[in-house]
Amino acid sequence: KMLGRVLCTVLFMGALPSLAEASQGHISVILVGATGDLANKYLWQGLFQLYMDQVSSGHSFTFHGAALAALEQGQRLMFDILKKLACPPDESPNRCAVLKDQFLKLCQYHQLKTAENYTVLNRAIERLLRQEGLKEAGRIFYFSVAPFAYTEIARHINSSCRPPPGAWLRVVLEKPFGHDLKSAQQLAAELTSFFREEEMYRVDHYLGKQAIAHILPFRDQNREFLDPIWNQHHVERVEIVLKETVDAKGRTSFYEQYGVIRDVMQNHLTEALMFLTMELPTNVSRAEEVLQCKLQAFQSLRGLEKNSAVLGQYQAYASQVQEELQKAQDYISTTPTFAGVLIHSDSLRWEGVPFLLTSGKALDERVGYVRVLFKNRAYCTQRETLRDAGHSQCKAKQIIFYIGHGALNTPAVLVSRNLFKPVMPEDSWREAVSQPDLHIFGQALSDYYVYTPVKERDAYSVLISNIYHGRKDFFITSESLLASWGFWTPLLDSISHQSVRLYPGGAENQHLLDFEMVSGELAFTLAEPVELLNPSRLMPSDYRTIQSKFRQSPLVSAWSEDLISQLASDIEKTASRTVARSGQFHLALSGGSSPVVLFQRLARHHYAFPWKHTHIWLVDERCVPLSDTESNFFSLHNHLLQSVRVPYFNVHPMPVHLNQRLCVEEDRGTELYAKEITALVANASFDLVLLGVGTDGHTASLFPQSENGLKGSQSVVLTESPVKPHQRMSLSLPLINKARQVFILVLGKGKHDITTLLSRVGHEPRKWPVSGVSPSSGQLVWYMDYEALLG
Amino acid sequence: KMLGRVLCTVLFMGALPSLAEASQGHISVILVGATGDLANKYLWQGLFQLYMDQVSSGHSFTFHGAALAALEQGQRLMFDILKKLACPPDESPNRCAVLKDQFLKLCQYHQLKTAENYTVLNRAIERLLRQEGLKEAGRIFYFSVAPFAYTEIARHINSSCRPPPGAWLRVVLEKPFGHDLKSAQQLAAELTSFFREEEMYRVDHYLGKQAIAHILPFRDQNREFLDPIWNQHHVERVEIVLKETVDAKGRTSFYEQYGVIRDVMQNHLTEALMFLTMELPTNVSRAEEVLQCKLQAFQSLRGLEKNSAVLGQYQAYASQVQEELQKAQDYISTTPTFAGVLIHSDSLRWEGVPFLLTSGKALDERVGYVRVLFKNRAYCTQRETLRDAGHSQCKAKQIIFYIGHGALNTPAVLVSRNLFKPVMPEDSWREAVSQPDLHIFGQALSDYYVYTPVKERDAYSVLISNIYHGRKDFFITSESLLASWGFWTPLLDSISHQSVRLYPGGAENQHLLDFEMVSGELAFTLAEPVELLNPSRLMPSDYRTIQSKFRQSPLVSAWSEDLISQLASDIEKTASRTVARSGQFHLALSGGSSPVVLFQRLARHHYAFPWKHTHIWLVDERCVPLSDTESNFFSLHNHLLQSVRVPYFNVHPMPVHLNQRLCVEEDRGTELYAKEITALVANASFDLVLLGVGTDGHTASLFPQSENGLKGSQSVVLTESPVKPHQRMSLSLPLINKARQVFILVLGKGKHDITTLLSRVGHEPRKWPVSGVSPSSGQLVWYMDYEALLG
Repeated sequence: KMLGRVLCTVLFMGALPSLAEASQGHISVILVGATGDLANKYLWQGLFQLYMDQVSSGHSFTFHGAALAALEQGQRLMFDILKKLACPPDESPNRCAVLKDQFLKLCQYHQLKTAENYTVLNRAIERLLRQEGLKEAGRIFYFSVAPFAYTEIARHINSSCRPPPGAWLRVVLEKPFGHDLKSAQQLAAELTSFFREEEMYRVDHYLGKQAIAHILPFRDQNREFLDPIWNQHHVERVEIVLKETVDAKGRTSFYEQYGVIRDVMQNHLTEALMFLTMELPTNVSRAEEVLQCKLQAFQSLRGLEKNSAVLGQYQAYASQVQEELQKAQDYISTTPTFAGVLIHSDSLRWEGVPFLLTSGKALDERVGYVRVLFKNRAYCTQRETLRDAGHSQCKAKQIIFYIGHGALNTPAVLVSRNLFKPVMPEDSWREAVSQPDLHIFGQALSDYYVYTPVKERDAYSVLISNIYHGRKDFFITSESLLASWGFWTPLLDSISHQSVRLYPGGAENQHLLDFEMVSGELAFTLAEPVELLNPSRLMPSDYRTIQSKFRQSPLVSAWSEDLISQLASDIEKTASRTVARSGQFHLALSGGSSPVVLFQRLARHHYAFPWKHTHIWLVDERCVPLSDTESNFFSLHNHLLQSVRVPYFNVHPMPVHLNQRLCVEEDRGTELYAKEITALVANASFDLVLLGVGTDGHTASLFPQSENGLKGSQSVVLTESPVKPHQRMSLSLPLINKARQVFILVLGKGKHDITTLLSRVGHEPRKWPVSGVSPSSGQLVWYMDYEALLG
Repeated sequence: KMLGRVLCTVLFMGALPSLAEASQGHISVILVGATGDLANKYLWQGLFQLYMDQVSSGHSFTFHGAALAALEQGQRLMFDILKKLACPPDESPNRCAVLKDQFLKLCQYHQLKTAENYTVLNRAIERLLRQEGLKEAGRIFYFSVAPFAYTEIARHINSSCRPPPGAWLRVVLEKPFGHDLKSAQQLAAELTSFFREEEMYRVDHYLGKQAIAHILPFRDQNREFLDPIWNQHHVERVEIVLKETVDAKGRTSFYEQYGVIRDVMQNHLTEALMFLTMELPTNVSRAEEVLQCKLQAFQSLRGLEKNSAVLGQYQAYASQVQEELQKAQDYISTTPTFAGVLIHSDSLRWEGVPFLLTSGKALDERVGYVRVLFKNRAYCTQRETLRDAGHSQCKAKQIIFYIGHGALNTPAVLVSRNLFKPVMPEDSWREAVSQPDLHIFGQALSDYYVYTPVKERDAYSVLISNIYHGRKDFFITSESLLASWGFWTPLLDSISHQSVRLYPGGAENQHLLDFEMVSGELAFTLAEPVELLNPSRLMPSDYRTIQSKFRQSPLVSAWSEDLISQLASDIEKTASRTVARSGQFHLALSGGSSPVVLFQRLARHHYAFPWKHTHIWLVDERCVPLSDTESNFFSLHNHLLQSVRVPYFNVHPMPVHLNQRLCVEEDRGTELYAKEITALVANASFDLVLLGVGTDGHTASLFPQSENGLKGSQSVVLTESPVKPHQRMSLSLPLINKARQVFILVLGKGKHDITTLLSRVGHEPRKWPVSGVSPSSGQLVWYMDYEALLG
């Protein structure tokens, strides 16, 4: 009531502070959720800061708090918050007191519950502008409410509160923006039906952290030094870390649904990652250029797999969840409160450089940083005790964007003195006074150039200022939001039932959460101590690979990821053994989708594979040009050959494209391939043939109800597929059966029916060509995942 | 005289110590050069140690000192040495005194100057054996003389001093074994005419250093731990270091001819390198298996280039040389007294791992070590101050074979505690008592498992014991000696006129000798301080690349290595620019020997080359199968394609081998290639064509006195070469002249005549096809080295 009166009084007196001088027009800021937690802790203070900073900008302001509460109650709650607004230490107390007084006068509470309420709000703004004779510059709606309310509020704003033509609308949204790719897409689609993309400001308050916000400017201003070293040849690793000491107590209803990856990695840490990895646009202040570079950087990220992450949960979490969410005693949560994730970019710049993202609750310290560690390429001839820290190239070289807390307890940018003295904008960063005893990241603080902000600003002040300035590059666009969810969702899906390592919390965690990179995957360094193991926590991934028989031949079965690892290892073993024996390894590979994961696995995890001595043959091919995306060879090339070093002479695509035409009989492609096999493969007996099975029982490109390629002396045949592209080239069954080893890979629920059928039938290749696979003197092994085997 | 009398007396008394009990036969040790420096310092002591160790072995011994000096003088000199023989600290003084007395009685001096002298020596040994009724087990001749004397002594031993059948002969040779590959081959050939390979024991006394000698046993005994990590995926770098504080004063007559690389790298450090890099034979004590693995390891070493090394010379060296060798004041020595060398092995195990060899005189400390540093693959979640040194995977992980001196002042084997606890043979190595304050290689000594020898033995004792036991694996065979010289000679040749960095010596060197790896090369970290620069020391390599004109086109000229770097950079620049513009880069490459260095340079130094978007075409091809070693494509593949990632579809070998036959006109290979060019290259205009020039003025495979391919509409033609293989396929001159850029590379003295001629003639393609190269709308640039240009 009091505030309402204040505003009314002032309006009638025509003495609203500074409104009259406004030549740039009036801005109305509407804070929806004005009495909530975030508004209380950060947003009102941020708005007050905006007012202090912009009071002489030529804009006039009014600030409208809004919530569901009725007028009087809402006013009281809001006033309690506003009373506590603090004066920043760098502001003169007198000026601040005057400005605070003015600010309070410009604040008004509104109930926003019904459609009617929105119309009333809109009218109040219009009336004020008319009475004061002010031009409207724009309106900022700040959504500080739970996301489920977004759509409703958005609808009302769109229908009742849009400013008139010529003035802008900015709606500010707080995370979470969805739960996975699908829900994020849905939310984005709904919002898009009410707002244009340029009207939406999705907040990631980490973009307001001074150290994070300075990554791009730093790269820009130090191009001269960074250009030669900001790449895979010089960067050893990058760590992006956000450690908390608090746990999720009191917030489990939120946390249990999200977990650490959704809570901080998908958003905060990913933004930092993008600032580091993206190509630098010519002009870093052009939001559109930055966005394009960012989206490209997302494109280059290698897909995450289950083993790209290690997960933990602090021990008290389970009981907190049981208590707060009233769960039963046997309720088990697999929500991670700690995660380490290994990310790779396949861009030319970053190929091979590990980006380690780490975050967790109940850890030993509160700290956040982005650390770029450079490779040591030097040998220092002088003995250690005689080396001069400033000059020695043998000391660690690093650049650190220190977000805050931890040993430094301030945002900072640190650059090792043996790297370069960075260019820093003097108005916002200054060299820090040295603290002689402090060690950080393995080195004395004096080994770094250390810069701290001239004026430490909290993230929300920075963000609100950016909203005011329309700096969209500090916010998350729909495209980049969806790109991020697109990147994280496969990992989130694959770990949704993954067991988590329990940790006691705090300093007691000791080395329990240390982890390591092993062949492109992550694993905890220490084995899980037995006393922490909970036997009821057995997860699907704990099943071991099952070995038994299928159609009288050995069967290897497991969940699909484990199966693929096993198969890849078995192929490598066969290859190494064969090369040791005969100097070369002849491998015939099938097309289709199942082998793609296998190819990727071989490319990424089997560095010791004897590729130099391996010949690659095709089991079958579609009659399309080799560089057509439908070509089996194209897929093989994309997923395997371009990542490994098979000599050009050892690669044998099928000659389906001769004389500028496809699979014409008289071009004799089949004979040509058969001759090549005879010339290079002893006895035309491949060392290993990898096959798949179709739902119709076909294998290679040998289809049911056709004699073609089932018997006779022809090694390579042309066949007809029931699906497009119809024309195919294929190895014949007799040739396949000459192989020393044949592996048949069967993946997925879709194959369960044919698998069941095959388990019952005998040798009937005309009906089910795969049933004719039976190496005359070699070995056949089935690799089948649980879904194909068990449905 | 006195010793002679002693021996004679003893012989007549029939009381030579322990000779009578010998059942294993008698061994005569003849030390040639018995009064020299090495004999004085190490060898007699080593022989005394052998006697102490083997006195109860069942063998009897006599020790014969020999030198050029006449009997009396020689005896006196030798006795002066023998008087000083020390008792080892671990031997009881009483037993040692008795044994020393016995040993002295078994020692005799001989003058060995004339052929007659050798016959006399041989008779003396025979007489003794006859008189004592001893069976002869063998004779050891230890050559402790200058290598120029080897052949003469070897001839005499072979003709007069061979033991009778059934007894062995072992001749022990001390380095230097030659000065480069050629001289080593010559010396080896001479010795081989007198001795069988198994009779020769070439000493590298570093193989007697306990830490070095233990590398292979360590690898063998710790296979379980090392197998997974002893490879490129886990090893970050290896340092093999031998630092001395002394300088070459007093030894410059030797040193000035050899320098640090010949003095310690070609032999000592290379042996350590081999022990580290070689594949481990099943049985490490089988000399033949070890040798085979070692030779294979030599095969895998990548050839050294001028820039593989950094070289230094301590400042006082010049005046020492002038004084000791009576050189003029303006005499300039380029002999390096310091070198750092970067070595790579291309084996699957070690590809990409830098092996840094460093040695020098007048440095800040005396120390020798072999250090294997492992990659840090861990992230430690706990903050640094809470980490437990023993368990943290974030501490450096290393294995160090500490040769001696330095901070530890003892041979040692160190293994980081976060790696594994090594298996060590208890009888020869024991865990050392910790020295709490000692830091070594960046870590507290307590972070390592430290092992020191149970009994510290000097290298010569170990070696003499190995000679006695016939352990040929501790000596250098002719094959491995020549392999080592074969590896080092190209570097020695290429740096023979290279300037060296001057350094003051000792601790004052500061960071002057620190060096860094940059794109596979080495360079000093600090620029040479101006005050040390001697303007008279300008070397050929200091000339900068010259830019001018040749035949009206731009000419780039330099010494060949610089020229190739320039050309490679220019090609990369063109490629990047073209890809940025059009998305792809069409590069046509010539065969022949000149481009090979270019290909290697591109493969090894241009990691940012846009290979993924580059199409590779052939300018010409010999009519042989593509995988024939004569094929241009084969050479291109070997030196470039197999090391970079050009997509399979972008590689376009010439179709010289169609329908199982070579370049038959009716197979229309030329048409096929022309069609492929038309289909893929816009306007059939290559982005860059690289050509060479033959001494007859041919270019591509377009030869003088033939119209073929010089004009007309055919883009690809079959031609005849005057040299084998005669049949060729080639791009035509009209097609080449359509290119956007043409670079012609001309290297070597052999091309000087044609270059001179070409500088004078006009457009006469029938006489000199290369004179017809003149891109109609593109640019032509000549890249010519000084030898081709200036003769």
